[in-house]
Amino acid sequence: MALRDEMVNLAKKAKEAAREMAVLSSRVKDMALMEMAEALTGQIAYLVIENEKDVKRAKEMGLSAAMIDRLTLTPARIHDMARGIREVAALPDPVGRITSMWRRPNGLLVGRMRIPLGVIGIIYESRPNVTSDAAALCLKAGNAVILRGGSEAINSNVAIAQVLRQVVAKHGIPEGAIQMVSVTDRAAVYELLQLDEYIDLIIPRGGEELIRAVVKESRIPVIKHYKGVCHVFVDEDADLEMALQICLNAKVQRPGVCNAMETLLIHEKVAPVFLPQVARALEEVGVKLRGCPETRKILPHIEAATEEDWYAEYLDLILAIRVVPNLTEAMDHIARYGSNHTEAIVTRDYSRAQEFLNKVQSSTVLVNASTRFSDGFELGLGAEIGISTTKLHAYGPMGVEELTTTKFIVYGEGQIRT
Amino acid sequence: MALRDEMVNLAKKAKEAAREMAVLSSRVKDMALMEMAEALTGQIAYLVIENEKDVKRAKEMGLSAAMIDRLTLTPARIHDMARGIREVAALPDPVGRITSMWRRPNGLLVGRMRIPLGVIGIIYESRPNVTSDAAALCLKAGNAVILRGGSEAINSNVAIAQVLRQVVAKHGIPEGAIQMVSVTDRAAVYELLQLDEYIDLIIPRGGEELIRAVVKESRIPVIKHYKGVCHVFVDEDADLEMALQICLNAKVQRPGVCNAMETLLIHEKVAPVFLPQVARALEEVGVKLRGCPETRKILPHIEAATEEDWYAEYLDLILAIRVVPNLTEAMDHIARYGSNHTEAIVTRDYSRAQEFLNKVQSSTVLVNASTRFSDGFELGLGAEIGISTTKLHAYGPMGVEELTTTKFIVYGEGQIRT
Repeated sequence: MALRDEMVNLAKKAKEAAREMAVLSSRVKDMALMEMAEALTGQIAYLVIENEKDVKRAKEMGLSAAMIDRLTLTPARIHDMARGIREVAALPDPVGRITSMWRRPNGLLVGRMRIPLGVIGIIYESRPNVTSDAAALCLKAGNAVILRGGSEAINSNVAIAQVLRQVVAKHGIPEGAIQMVSVTDRAAVYELLQLDEYIDLIIPRGGEELIRAVVKESRIPVIKHYKGVCHVFVDEDADLEMALQICLNAKVQRPGVCNAMETLLIHEKVAPVFLPQVARALEEVGVKLRGCPETRKILPHIEAATEEDWYAEYLDLILAIRVVPNLTEAMDHIARYGSNHTEAIVTRDYSRAQEFLNKVQSSTVLVNASTRFSDGFELGLGAEIGISTTKLHAYGPMGVEELTTTKFIVYGEGQIRT
Repeated sequence: MALRDEMVNLAKKAKEAAREMAVLSSRVKDMALMEMAEALTGQIAYLVIENEKDVKRAKEMGLSAAMIDRLTLTPARIHDMARGIREVAALPDPVGRITSMWRRPNGLLVGRMRIPLGVIGIIYESRPNVTSDAAALCLKAGNAVILRGGSEAINSNVAIAQVLRQVVAKHGIPEGAIQMVSVTDRAAVYELLQLDEYIDLIIPRGGEELIRAVVKESRIPVIKHYKGVCHVFVDEDADLEMALQICLNAKVQRPGVCNAMETLLIHEKVAPVFLPQVARALEEVGVKLRGCPETRKILPHIEAATEEDWYAEYLDLILAIRVVPNLTEAMDHIARYGSNHTEAIVTRDYSRAQEFLNKVQSSTVLVNASTRFSDGFELGLGAEIGISTTKLHAYGPMGVEELTTTKFIVYGEGQIRT
C-alpha cells in the first residue's frame, strides 16, 4: 500500500507538472535543454562514479559482457548523450501548431492544435543513455516523464535524472517534469501501469519479455515493438549489384539492432545468379545462412531453415533465405511471418515497387534502400524515442511529434445547435 | 477453451480480411456501402421482426423505458441508419493518401502514407444502430471490424450484421470484414481483449462501468471516453445575451448526451447581473440548479453544490454553478474536475479567448459557441465512431481518418547506411 501511494504521488505530481509544461514557450524549453547538455558534461566525474557502482554490482552478479558494455558510461558516451540533447533542442517545437483549419456552413471556424500527450511513462532496461534521451524528447514536446530504468542501472539513472532535474528547476519548469522511479521492486512498475488517470502513454523499451509483461498489466495505452523481423525482397528485375550492397548493409552493418535484415526473399528468376553471389559475400564476413529447399538446391552446403527460422529475430550474423515464385508470395511471407517493422524491395520496375509500397502494411517500407534506414534520425525525424509497431498515432520510428496529439479548437460568434 | 478458440478464429479471419481490405479501391468500398444502405431499407420487415424479439425480452426483464426506447428499431430509424451509411460513402477515402514527403541529404525520398489500422473491435451496449454505423465507418477506412453488442440487442445486431455481410460478399470484400460476436457470454469479451496479435484497437461505447472493465482487461490499446463533464465559462466581458443562449443550448437542447454542459463557471464581475438571468431562463425549462456559496449569495433559493457535484455527469436537467474570481481559476477548476471532453468560453476579449484555447487541454475547446458542437458531424468530420478523451491519434470526436494511421514509405536508389 505504501508503494502504491508513492507511485500515485509521483504520477499526480507529473500530471500537475504536465499542465504547466503544455504552455511553456519553445525558448524556455530549448534553453533548459541546452543547459541540461552542459550539466551532463560538467558532471562527468560524478556520473562515472555513480555508474561504477552499477558496473561493479553487474560484474559481481555475473552479467554478460554485452550487458556490462551497454551499462557502462564513459566520458565519450556522456558527451554523446549531451550531443543528443542539443540535437533535440535544435528541432522545431511541435506544440501549439495549428495543423489544419476549416470553416463550417454555420460559420464556426474549426481547427486542430498540436498539444503534448501529457504524462509519459518510459520503462526500459540497462542503457543509461535512455534516461537523458527520453527526458529531453519528452520535455521538448511539453510532456512530463516518469522514468523507470532497470535495477541494474539504478545508480546511473538516478544520477543522470538528478543532474537534469537541477537544471530544469532553474528554468522555472516544475520539478514533476522529470521523475525517476528509484524503487527497484518490480511491483512499482505494476502500480504505475494501473494509473490511467494520471499517465497518458507507456513506452516500454527492452526485451520482448519485458514488453509483453507491460502490455498484459497496463491499463494505459502502450506503444511498443516486440521485435524486428525485417525482410529484403530481391525482385526478378533487381539491379543485382545494388541488391548485393543492400543485403550486405542490411545484414552486417549492425546485426544486433531491430532494423537489421533477418530474412532474405529472392525471386526464383534471379535466384540461380544472385544466390551464389550474395552467399559468398555474406559468408566472407561470417554470416551463417539457413535456406528453404529451393535455396539449398542452389546452395547445398547451407543449413536447412525450419519454420521457426521465418519468425526469428536473430540479432546476430545469421540469415534465413527463401526463394519465392513471385511478388505476391513474397508479400504473403512478410504478412505471415513479419513483425510490422521494416521491409525493403529491390527492383527496377516502378509499378512493382509501388505495389509493394502500397500492399505491405509494415511500419516502414523501402524501395531500393537498406532496412537500416528505419530509424528516426535517418528518416529525418531528428531524434527517436523508439519504434512503434502498434498502429496508433505513431507507427514506425517515433520522434518528438509522436509525443504529441491534437485537440479541436473552435471559434464561434454565438453559434448554438438546433 | 472452446470459447477462446472461437474468438481466436474470428479474430484471425478478421486479420486476414484486413490485409485484403487495406488495398480495396475507394470505388469498391463506396459501391458496397451504397448497397448496404439499400439492403437495410429493403429488409425492414425482417429487421423489425428480429428486433421485436429483443424488445419483448427486454420488457419481460423489466428494463427501463429509456433502455427499451434505445433498443427499439422502427422503419424510420432503419432509414436513418441507411442515410448514415450513404453519408459515409460520400466521404473522401483517407487510405493511400501521402500526408507528407521530404528528401534526405543522401537522396532518400521519405513520405508518410495513410493506411487502415487493421482490425477494430467495437464493444457497445443497446443501440443497434451502432452496428451499421461502425461497420460502415470501418469499411470506409479499410478496416475489418469485430462487433460485440449487448446481449439485450443480440437478435437485432445479428440480423443487421447478416444483411450487411451479404452485400459485402457480393462485392468481393472478404467475409471476415464484418464480424459479429454472437456469443452473449461476457467471457467472450474478455477473450477478445487478449488477442493483441490480431486486433489493433478497441473502441468501447457505453456506460462508464463497461468501459472501465474493458480498460482493465485489454492488452489492446483502448480509445474511449468515460464521461463528459463539460464546462461553459462566462468571462467578465462576455456578451451576456450570447452567453445566455449558449448556456441554454448547452444544457437543455439535449441534456442526456456527453457534450451537454454539466457545470457553469461565471466570472465574479458578471455574476450579479448574469446569474439571475441565466437561472430564470434555465429554471423556466425545468433545470435544477446547485451552486457554490458565492452563487447562493445571489441565488439563495438554490441547492448547495457539494464536492461531488463538480465531478458529476448528470446527463439530466441539473446544473452545477460556480462563481470564480478570474480566468485562471476557471481553468484550474476545469483541469481539476473536468473529463478532458469539451469546454467553452464566452468572451469578447480576443487575448483571453486565445489563452483559454491554448491552456485548456480538453479534446475540444470552443470560443463563443455551444459545447453541443463537439460532435464529429458538427465539426465537419462527416461521421463519428465515438469521442476519445484518450490522448492518442484520436482526441475528441473520431471520424473516418481516426480509423487510420500512417506508415513510412521510402524511395531509394541503392542507398546503404554507413
